[in-house]
Amino acid sequence: MREAYQSDLRHIVDDLLDMADLVGRALEEATQALLEGDLALAERVIAADPHIDRRQIDLDSKAVELLARQAPVATDLRLLVASLRMSSSLERMGDLCAHVALVARRTHPEPAVPEQHRAQIARMSELGGIALRDAARVIAERDLALAAQVEKDDAELDDLMLEVSREIARGDGYTNAQIVDLTLLIRFYERLGDHAVSLVRRVGFLVTGDSLDAYHDGVDVPEF
Amino acid sequence: MREAYQSDLRHIVDDLLDMADLVGRALEEATQALLEGDLALAERVIAADPHIDRRQIDLDSKAVELLARQAPVATDLRLLVASLRMSSSLERMGDLCAHVALVARRTHPEPAVPEQHRAQIARMSELGGIALRDAARVIAERDLALAAQVEKDDAELDDLMLEVSREIARGDGYTNAQIVDLTLLIRFYERLGDHAVSLVRRVGFLVTGDSLDAYHDGVDVPEF
Repeated sequence: MREAYQSDLRHIVDDLLDMADLVGRALEEATQALLEGDLALAERVIAADPHIDRRQIDLDSKAVELLARQAPVATDLRLLVASLRMSSSLERMGDLCAHVALVARRTHPEPAVPEQHRAQIARMSELGGIALRDAARVIAERDLALAAQVEKDDAELDDLMLEVSREIARGDGYTNAQIVDLTLLIRFYERLGDHAVSLVRRVGFLVTGDSLDAYHDGVDVPEF
Repeated sequence: MREAYQSDLRHIVDDLLDMADLVGRALEEATQALLEGDLALAERVIAADPHIDRRQIDLDSKAVELLARQAPVATDLRLLVASLRMSSSLERMGDLCAHVALVARRTHPEPAVPEQHRAQIARMSELGGIALRDAARVIAERDLALAAQVEKDDAELDDLMLEVSREIARGDGYTNAQIVDLTLLIRFYERLGDHAVSLVRRVGFLVTGDSLDAYHDGVDVPEF
């Protein structure tokens, strides 16, 4: 019985890692669809999002069932509580990837991202992917040293968002619709980074027992 | 002991309602600061946000402690699990109000919202406030009939976001910076409505035991 319980707890972590993997793929494909104007790929990302949602619902049910059945305490309890928050962040990251794909689909066949911002958007997506993979490693190995790297990637993402938004404000040659889309896109990528940071902070709670959203700094979006 | 436990559970609900109240005030004040160009009020909303964050951290600690100490099952367990998700949504709603105030501060003394969109923004804020108050009533009274009204308010918020973004795309006379700000603002209000919907859905889980994020529809932002 005890052994089955430990195996159930490991499955919760595996489920989180699977979700992170699905989100990582959605992010890469959404950005590819966006930058290459690949409508079919955008449709696939949008259609795949409910699978990520379903994974969250399954994970939540398992975690609540374990809370009810095993009355865990200490680290096991913290793992389940943190997992409920992490599943929520991962589900939301999936939504954000789908939002990127929705922009790709809406603007098709026009490119959503003007030529001069393509490299910045590609880099934002890359940073989001790195932060997500690192967050997954922090979850798997409870390696809080790596957590600092996720915060650094997020800071670079924030800087890029500022850079793009300032270039838009100063620049010309944009259509109004392009500005709306670019503003949303850089916000989606920036939020992905925020969620990766939330993930590793919750591993901090799991390991140290500090507050579930430790080091919360109130307003999480940098000012333009 | 049993009585103290029931009182602790009631305090969790009271804490959620207090958080909802703080967020409701932040929303009203942020919108007032935005539309009236009131810099001091914007500063106050920004400075107050960490108090909402602190309330979340306290509520989470209490909920985790009750999970550990009382090993609740059935409705009590669901209440604590749902509360952990709801506190997270309320904290995020507080952030969104602070983001509105940040836009007000950044654009001051220029008005952030062009004349022709003031009524729409005021209405989006009003709808967000109504949805939040109704969500709080659903939490307090577990009245799922009222939940439908929250979904309706959210649908009207979504429609307004579409309306404004289409007017921006077609219109002229905007500066690039105004388009960036307006896009962010309507997104902030729209997300507030989404979170109100999440709150009432979690009361659904509490009452019925259905999944924690029941009726999740995948991509929660309407397409522009």
